[in-house]
Amino acid sequence: MKAKIVITPKKAVLDPQGKTVQTALEHMGYTGVAGVHVGKYIEIDLAPGTDKVAAATALDDAARKFLSNPVIEDYKLEIVD
Amino acid sequence: MKAKIVITPKKAVLDPQGKTVQTALEHMGYTGVAGVHVGKYIEIDLAPGTDKVAAATALDDAARKFLSNPVIEDYKLEIVD
Repeated sequence: MKAKIVITPKKAVLDPQGKTVQTALEHMGYTGVAGVHVGKYIEIDLAPGTDKVAAATALDDAARKFLSNPVIEDYKLEIVD
Repeated sequence: MKAKIVITPKKAVLDPQGKTVQTALEHMGYTGVAGVHVGKYIEIDLAPGTDKVAAATALDDAARKFLSNPVIEDYKLEIVD
């Protein structure tokens, strides 16, 4: 079982890394890009037999408290088998 | 239409950021964690009417050439409507 956490900057927050990637793609000659957001991806391998609900609760807590900065970032937690 | 690129360190490569998150989770009292991998997440908004196949080809190229470092990182590209 795995937990996947995706952390992205909020839409209203300046994203210089995303802007850089967008410019790079345009320089590469690829022009169909309307916007780029760069964030973090955290994949957590859960020990076999872990309770899915307990894991979701604990990891949601962790994501809010120290993996993301809720002032400027959004996060999305997903538990997959 | 959106493209999502997830870049993670290869399994054989040392991942100090992942190790740090794992230790932090253990200190938080959550022990069901077997391993943590920290990578990058890039979300690309594609202009309306973009050709899906052409976008996939160009972005795969970009992911391999400059968004990831193929020596130490794996990437996964996904185009969603």
